[in-house]
Amino acid sequence: MKIDILTLFPEMFNIFNHSIIGNAMEKGILSIKATNIRDFTTNKHKKVDDYPYGGGAGMVMAPQPIVDAIRHIKETNKGKVIFLGPRGKTLNQELCKELAKEKELIFLCGHYEGIDERCFKHIDMELSLGDFVLTGGEMACIPAIDSIARMIPGVLSCDESYEEESFYDGLLEYPQYTRPFEFEGEEVPGVLISGHHENVRKWRRLQSLLITKDRRMDLYKKIELTKEDKKLLEKHFKK
Amino acid sequence: MKIDILTLFPEMFNIFNHSIIGNAMEKGILSIKATNIRDFTTNKHKKVDDYPYGGGAGMVMAPQPIVDAIRHIKETNKGKVIFLGPRGKTLNQELCKELAKEKELIFLCGHYEGIDERCFKHIDMELSLGDFVLTGGEMACIPAIDSIARMIPGVLSCDESYEEESFYDGLLEYPQYTRPFEFEGEEVPGVLISGHHENVRKWRRLQSLLITKDRRMDLYKKIELTKEDKKLLEKHFKK
Repeated sequence: MKIDILTLFPEMFNIFNHSIIGNAMEKGILSIKATNIRDFTTNKHKKVDDYPYGGGAGMVMAPQPIVDAIRHIKETNKGKVIFLGPRGKTLNQELCKELAKEKELIFLCGHYEGIDERCFKHIDMELSLGDFVLTGGEMACIPAIDSIARMIPGVLSCDESYEEESFYDGLLEYPQYTRPFEFEGEEVPGVLISGHHENVRKWRRLQSLLITKDRRMDLYKKIELTKEDKKLLEKHFKK
Repeated sequence: MKIDILTLFPEMFNIFNHSIIGNAMEKGILSIKATNIRDFTTNKHKKVDDYPYGGGAGMVMAPQPIVDAIRHIKETNKGKVIFLGPRGKTLNQELCKELAKEKELIFLCGHYEGIDERCFKHIDMELSLGDFVLTGGEMACIPAIDSIARMIPGVLSCDESYEEESFYDGLLEYPQYTRPFEFEGEEVPGVLISGHHENVRKWRRLQSLLITKDRRMDLYKKIELTKEDKKLLEKHFKK
């Protein structure tokens, strides 16, 4: 996937040089390029923002540098233009999977009090991380790209499969344990060292169901419980 | 506020040297320090993870380096230990405001398939950005710290006030406009240059109500409409 980012802080995106996303870039599966919106301003003082019409706190990003930057990037990237902002569609795993199928994407990061409303006719989608406010769109863009990019085939290695992680089947993940068997007096649950794969699977499924029920009733209500799920829960609560 | 972060990728947090959070650090309002969990492993090969008991994809972070790192940091930071993970409480603006009141906080970032369940007795709160999966806790920790830190008095300057932004009163923000008055044939709404403050306020309130109703019925349903709100909406829909 080819990703272009329009931002006033391109150096922030150096963060992707680390970790799994950086590896995918080295392998050529993914390219991420950040372009400075300030390079496109026609203002002689290189200004990109101005006071809001109608008054109020903060500065608003002017339309000219943003729209010209979008037009420039569109010459080499035909992807959707996604603006990161609190009024957008809330990101979820379903949407990550959808966006991971795209060949090209353009992300636009606002800063200060937001962008001039007239920019929105050049924007295809507004995306939000959640119901909280950030100092700039970059802070939302980074995790959004991370969560989308990791769903692109080849980005995660085979042993980093996502088929058992949280939200994959609408449930939160079961508890994980690793060496040592006993840590500060606490042992790993016996079933996990039983070597009985079917029992391990059932135990994990039950734990996922219980954790989701306990912490996220909203998700739990959306799941269609299988016959086996009902049996596992019944047996658990009978004890 | 004093923030300590426990992570395998401390260099990622250099991102805070930029922008508003960096300024607050320079002013001494905020300190952010990232400590490498790997420095605490007793494993002679400096390993911090191992295969999951019971099988399955990926590696799990072992309990010893994490628990020893927490104990070390707690000697100088008495704050809550917050783990970033998908099974946690979902971050929202209310929670940001609450956490911004703390004097000290410790963030723990997991990586790979998660952390050994036995670490959780040393963790006070699990926090999630939303229902999507990231390559590591760092990707959630960065925006979480950003959104919390900006609510600390003095971090935003007076002209970056947050009293009119999205979620402040349960509504999404109204549209913003700045110079030029006409951009590519499109003019700023007349009311914003009327100089009539009361009309500007009413127009903005109506726009906030309409945008929230259109995009986030879930938020809109939670608002208690004032008498004025009802009047503004009635007048709008009569047209």
